[in-house]
Amino acid sequence: MMRILFSILLIGLLSPPILAQATASKTDEISGNWIFSVQFPEETETHRTSLQVADNKFTGSLGIRKIEGSISDSVITIKFLNPNGMQIATGTGKLQEGILKGEGDLSGVKFKWSARRPAVRPEGGPRTHTFTPTEFHGAFTHTIPAVLRIFPGDTVKTKSVDAYGMDENSALRAMGGNPVTGPFFIEGAMPGDTLVVKLNSVRTNRDWARSGQSIVGNALEPGYLMNLKRAQGFNSRWKLDKEKGIAYLEQPTDPLKNLTIPLQPMLGCVGVAPPAGFVIRTRDSGVFGGNMDYNQIREGTTVYLPVFYDGALLFLGDGHAAQGDGELTGAALETSMEFEFTVDVISGKSIGTPRAENAEYLISIGIGGSLDQALQRATTDLARWLEGDYKLNSTEAAIVMGFAVKYDVADLVDTQVSIVAKIPKTTLAQLKQ
Amino acid sequence: MMRILFSILLIGLLSPPILAQATASKTDEISGNWIFSVQFPEETETHRTSLQVADNKFTGSLGIRKIEGSISDSVITIKFLNPNGMQIATGTGKLQEGILKGEGDLSGVKFKWSARRPAVRPEGGPRTHTFTPTEFHGAFTHTIPAVLRIFPGDTVKTKSVDAYGMDENSALRAMGGNPVTGPFFIEGAMPGDTLVVKLNSVRTNRDWARSGQSIVGNALEPGYLMNLKRAQGFNSRWKLDKEKGIAYLEQPTDPLKNLTIPLQPMLGCVGVAPPAGFVIRTRDSGVFGGNMDYNQIREGTTVYLPVFYDGALLFLGDGHAAQGDGELTGAALETSMEFEFTVDVISGKSIGTPRAENAEYLISIGIGGSLDQALQRATTDLARWLEGDYKLNSTEAAIVMGFAVKYDVADLVDTQVSIVAKIPKTTLAQLKQ
Amino acid sequence: MMRILFSILLIGLLSPPILAQATASKTDEISGNWIFSVQFPEETETHRTSLQVADNKFTGSLGIRKIEGSISDSVITIKFLNPNGMQIATGTGKLQEGILKGEGDLSGVKFKWSARRPAVRPEGGPRTHTFTPTEFHGAFTHTIPAVLRIFPGDTVKTKSVDAYGMDENSALRAMGGNPVTGPFFIEGAMPGDTLVVKLNSVRTNRDWARSGQSIVGNALEPGYLMNLKRAQGFNSRWKLDKEKGIAYLEQPTDPLKNLTIPLQPMLGCVGVAPPAGFVIRTRDSGVFGGNMDYNQIREGTTVYLPVFYDGALLFLGDGHAAQGDGELTGAALETSMEFEFTVDVISGKSIGTPRAENAEYLISIGIGGSLDQALQRATTDLARWLEGDYKLNSTEAAIVMGFAVKYDVADLVDTQVSIVAKIPKTTLAQLKQ
Amino acid sequence: MMRILFSILLIGLLSPPILAQATASKTDEISGNWIFSVQFPEETETHRTSLQVADNKFTGSLGIRKIEGSISDSVITIKFLNPNGMQIATGTGKLQEGILKGEGDLSGVKFKWSARRPAVRPEGGPRTHTFTPTEFHGAFTHTIPAVLRIFPGDTVKTKSVDAYGMDENSALRAMGGNPVTGPFFIEGAMPGDTLVVKLNSVRTNRDWARSGQSIVGNALEPGYLMNLKRAQGFNSRWKLDKEKGIAYLEQPTDPLKNLTIPLQPMLGCVGVAPPAGFVIRTRDSGVFGGNMDYNQIREGTTVYLPVFYDGALLFLGDGHAAQGDGELTGAALETSMEFEFTVDVISGKSIGTPRAENAEYLISIGIGGSLDQALQRATTDLARWLEGDYKLNSTEAAIVMGFAVKYDVADLVDTQVSIVAKIPKTTLAQLKQ
Repeated sequence: MMRILFSILLIGLLSPPILAQATASKTDEISGNWIFSVQFPEETETHRTSLQVADNKFTGSLGIRKIEGSISDSVITIKFLNPNGMQIATGTGKLQEGILKGEGDLSGVKFKWSARRPAVRPEGGPRTHTFTPTEFHGAFTHTIPAVLRIFPGDTVKTKSVDAYGMDENSALRAMGGNPVTGPFFIEGAMPGDTLVVKLNSVRTNRDWARSGQSIVGNALEPGYLMNLKRAQGFNSRWKLDKEKGIAYLEQPTDPLKNLTIPLQPMLGCVGVAPPAGFVIRTRDSGVFGGNMDYNQIREGTTVYLPVFYDGALLFLGDGHAAQGDGELTGAALETSMEFEFTVDVISGKSIGTPRAENAEYLISIGIGGSLDQALQRATTDLARWLEGDYKLNSTEAAIVMGFAVKYDVADLVDTQVSIVAKIPKTTLAQLKQ
Repeated sequence: MMRILFSILLIGLLSPPILAQATASKTDEISGNWIFSVQFPEETETHRTSLQVADNKFTGSLGIRKIEGSISDSVITIKFLNPNGMQIATGTGKLQEGILKGEGDLSGVKFKWSARRPAVRPEGGPRTHTFTPTEFHGAFTHTIPAVLRIFPGDTVKTKSVDAYGMDENSALRAMGGNPVTGPFFIEGAMPGDTLVVKLNSVRTNRDWARSGQSIVGNALEPGYLMNLKRAQGFNSRWKLDKEKGIAYLEQPTDPLKNLTIPLQPMLGCVGVAPPAGFVIRTRDSGVFGGNMDYNQIREGTTVYLPVFYDGALLFLGDGHAAQGDGELTGAALETSMEFEFTVDVISGKSIGTPRAENAEYLISIGIGGSLDQALQRATTDLARWLEGDYKLNSTEAAIVMGFAVKYDVADLVDTQVSIVAKIPKTTLAQLKQ
Repeated sequence: MMRILFSILLIGLLSPPILAQATASKTDEISGNWIFSVQFPEETETHRTSLQVADNKFTGSLGIRKIEGSISDSVITIKFLNPNGMQIATGTGKLQEGILKGEGDLSGVKFKWSARRPAVRPEGGPRTHTFTPTEFHGAFTHTIPAVLRIFPGDTVKTKSVDAYGMDENSALRAMGGNPVTGPFFIEGAMPGDTLVVKLNSVRTNRDWARSGQSIVGNALEPGYLMNLKRAQGFNSRWKLDKEKGIAYLEQPTDPLKNLTIPLQPMLGCVGVAPPAGFVIRTRDSGVFGGNMDYNQIREGTTVYLPVFYDGALLFLGDGHAAQGDGELTGAALETSMEFEFTVDVISGKSIGTPRAENAEYLISIGIGGSLDQALQRATTDLARWLEGDYKLNSTEAAIVMGFAVKYDVADLVDTQVSIVAKIPKTTLAQLKQ
Repeated sequence: MMRILFSILLIGLLSPPILAQATASKTDEISGNWIFSVQFPEETETHRTSLQVADNKFTGSLGIRKIEGSISDSVITIKFLNPNGMQIATGTGKLQEGILKGEGDLSGVKFKWSARRPAVRPEGGPRTHTFTPTEFHGAFTHTIPAVLRIFPGDTVKTKSVDAYGMDENSALRAMGGNPVTGPFFIEGAMPGDTLVVKLNSVRTNRDWARSGQSIVGNALEPGYLMNLKRAQGFNSRWKLDKEKGIAYLEQPTDPLKNLTIPLQPMLGCVGVAPPAGFVIRTRDSGVFGGNMDYNQIREGTTVYLPVFYDGALLFLGDGHAAQGDGELTGAALETSMEFEFTVDVISGKSIGTPRAENAEYLISIGIGGSLDQALQRATTDLARWLEGDYKLNSTEAAIVMGFAVKYDVADLVDTQVSIVAKIPKTTLAQLKQ
């Protein structure tokens, strides 16, 4: 069977209420804002909630559902109600060291629940953190503990090793396959929100890179593949000259002797912890971003990602000194990077696919199993973006996209491919808002 | 069964020779250059040949095959030999009014053959022709007689009606569906050659256009389509202001009130007669070009097309005042056009898909049944282009494309879709040749 | 621009009527049923009409449009009205030797029109014709004159050469590439109808076949293709033993020494003249059928094809003695065939893709540029078939298809691929009708 | 960057050896067979090895690499060598309670390593285990502890809840989304092996099921989707009559009143722990099997899966009482099941995609992002299967598949789709082996 959401069941089918008994005190200790999680073995649901307390009873909401409960001597009784007030689950728990924690039963299925107070931003406004990574990760997942907890508005200066695991001193720091820096926990980023990652700078910090040297098979016709002879002994190591802003082959063959290419540093990987407990290796991409390998994810670009876990858990890495469309050779000019980014959170706004924005364009990144599917996702998301943020109806969105849409082939080489649909800001500036 | 080429059989299988008897005269009348065609019911093969005559006997070649024959009192006996000298067919014919013409038998299968002298360019070098079309055509096919015979180097000034058949005076001149101007017969363009069409100017010649107003279904996700509500009564007629170089909706809805878009006139259709006798309606595209709807086929761009029939038979039309990538709404800003182009022929060079070139890029246009297939064709052709014209091996081509390739989604709306792979000329300028 | 139908214009935009003047006689000569065609350069529209005559005036309908006219001394004046009575075109013509013929003007665009009396079936009911073909054709097109005119209910016994053009005596009769037998003109088959072709028998008539010997590239992974080594000198000629109903390689390699395969004769090509003037080579397929290469198009199967031209113009050929799914090796066991079929016409019922039926299944044949598109077309057509003929709503159709649909991969090797969706008749027998 | 394997690095690039010092004893405690794992943060590599001990020194191999070491007072020093003897990593560790355990350093990257003795099958030969599950899992992953450890040849009788989490008593036992039974740890199944799962019986154990009631969007044409009206209030709950072997709607609409369908119980999910640390929800599929939703995975079928983790970790569930091809409605007749299976392991044989086998066919299951990609994978694997097990060259494999291959569309509804290529055993029986 296809996907069935926990949410559906929680709203759904379930049985008559058993009213929770409740007595006594601790009122002000549980009154106010919490971050409340319900944990099933492979699925966690997290919500912001504000508990209203009267006597020893409290009420709150978890998204469209409600909770009611009582507290007595730190012992909590709780029930979960669907939108029309029907009880769907019960639980018990404790308040201990400022944390609520307990267990529950949803029609026979056991679960855990917990709540913590939202973190409070330290005084003095947004901060800049310099973070020197000591570990690098080969997977996007909520199971890796955060290396740093930051607040919306904060800036992080950090760096990444190359796709093979080598750092700016050419020292091996992790096994190959796009080891990434992070995860960064963004306080206040909750499932259903959008994480904003502005790349203030993305710069190479080493004087060499290594690239692939054959076009990936799925980008070539069968007839060409069958007769393909690959050159032996070609050396695809590149010299990076940051001063001049160029790269060139260290040992070029004769026809490539004069080739110098402009450095256009980018990050192949920007992603959050994927939804629903998935652990995805850092060579892959999806709705959570990840190894999107889009050459416009670079200095000056802002990336938008949906949040699936408390804190979002942001990973970055896989720097490329330069890359054509689609990362056609499987590996671009792979190198280590130093970069700086500022985060923000758009609360309560959910996006269906990664987005980005630079000085010129709004950008929807469609990721799918084929280029046709990726393009459908990019086009649809861009239409929805215009309909949502610019209040166009579907016909007006079609008119605008009809003359203004541009597509980029972003990534051809991974399990999922991606196509970008983008629209110039000069066009958007003309829309009456 | 899949495709089996006539050529394979002509090279192939066939039976022992019956030597043609031949006598006498007319030597200088048949000596020298001819354009020689062999016609089967649904397939025609045409070659340049040069006949060597001695006594009353002549020899020549048809591509990789050979012909031998004799002429006596204008009566010709001929035999066709495969590359290793085996006779595969015989024929008889006549020389009459400077034309050779006759019939043949290939192992029991009857065919016709004929030869004409190549046209000689009039003195005075390349000419400029002003051609005012009186008919427009709804199909790409070799069966439509040429409206003008021109020579390599010649320039044609002409115009086209819009996709609905309306001309610059808003008069209906043809039924809708991309009626095109032409065909132009280019003397000296032969099957196996490449036709060069340089678009010197492409300009709107009317003050209005009409566009589509909904995104084509295959570019959207199923979930969006299922819930799509289209606005009623939207008027997608555009005012074209050639002076200011802009277009705007004549009756915009409120959110689109301030929308003005730059005119970027282009031709949706540039194509030659398709191979193998196919008749293809002008809404479709293929290896012969056709309705490619690529927004970079515009003033300043040179289009390269493979030649499949004697004279190539060039058609042009389907002007768009402006169009985003992919012609996303099915119809762009459809309008009539005036344009000027110069033709040339690259003899003996065969390309496998349409190509183009502008000030910035070499461009391979991949056309296929899905975006994935179209991209494979574009990528492969561009690799072959680099390997052929820049003498790179496949690894060097991969290196260059790896950092420099750019893709455009050219056309999403027709039976075949297309993706363009292109490479900057600044990169190519660095390749040692 | 995408497709724009002539019909749209004819319904559409056009200008105020100029009333046709008309006088006198010839009433009974034009009264009654006609087959009426309107011909634009690349598009022909044909309708059944019945003319009502009063005095010297007549009226009739052409699909949803109307005609009105008068006749005087064999001279006809006619006007064409759209459904709400607005005049859209005018014409003049003549009645001559039982044929109406003339010219017209649609808002400036010239066209021709003509009408003929429907053929009358000879007395004695359906007939069986034995047709010995002398020519074979390499294209599906309405431009080839019919070789035989038959009536609904008639049966034809005929034969076909193999894909390489060789007949039952191994004599070459046509150039290779699926030369087909026909076209057969079916009286009464009109655009908008469905042609029914029941294959009463399909039998080999020769003792050998030749097959392909490598899997087509688009059915293989890039990695396999890159390392593929093909065996040299393999002989893929098969012996056909009709008595025993088996085939075996004439010169098998050792591992294939014991291989005998059951003869399952089928026709790779069953098609009608394609719509809109297209000429399509017989290696291709489309909405008109054609080279569908589906191994269930065999003895006992009934094929349904949409009709696009007066008489449908049916072609058949490309016999395979046996073939796995998809015609994976590009050529199946190609051989000559003798076969018998009976035709019928379903008037006024239009289908959107070829269909078939055998003892066990209703079959929708989806043809598209990718397998995904082909499957969408097959699934959609089958849903529509159930909704139309079995009066199910879309949910009921989904329920039935959900447990009963079966898919076949019909054809992998041609420009368009095809997937079949089919549903068992045992399931359909349970639907309350 | 694309995938880079740990293995490549271990074979690869690394630096000069530092010879491990080693002394003394414990010989027989470490001599002989071990299961040896090297663990990087997101990647684990496991091999069978046999340690040869002389004095206090030992040697062994890890796949193509070698290890050398010494043991002294339970303290181990170890070095890892690539195939040509170059040292690539060093480590230290301990022997404690029969387990080897330690840490290592690969050119600066830290890792853990460990070794355990292979389990020894208890006396008395293969056993049958009756396992009553108490937990069900929503993900395929190596991180879930095994519920049962079994040996090759062992049989397990167990059961599964339905896709919504309900058991045979209609009690909710887990959250919806295909909760599966397991994982079962198969002793001796190692990465690089093939796990064999023979489904001896698969039977419904409840009298009702619930199905989807609309065709999934990606299987329908855009035009159909745009106009789709879904029936309200349809009840897709089915009655299952195990006695009669049929199912029927509990509250059919009128046209479906007589519909009874044969029970053909199958398991939608059969999968092992995915490679490389991936955690994949049970609605998805991949090279590890998973939610393949192929209706021939049923009683009598043997499933073959590649092994990626020590013990394979087998999960099963998602029973369907009946299902057409592709699980077209997203949910088939979802119900709880009781089933019995026997496992085996093919040591050292690695397969690239799931395979299966029943009385009639060998079956390759191609899983990919589009049907085209899935078909390429299925076709390629089947060719490799014939080449590997039947010693055919690629041409002979093509000949056999050309007339004998059959394709099934297995799964249309999940992130990855699947197509099956299969070949009749009657054909294979004729191949000379």
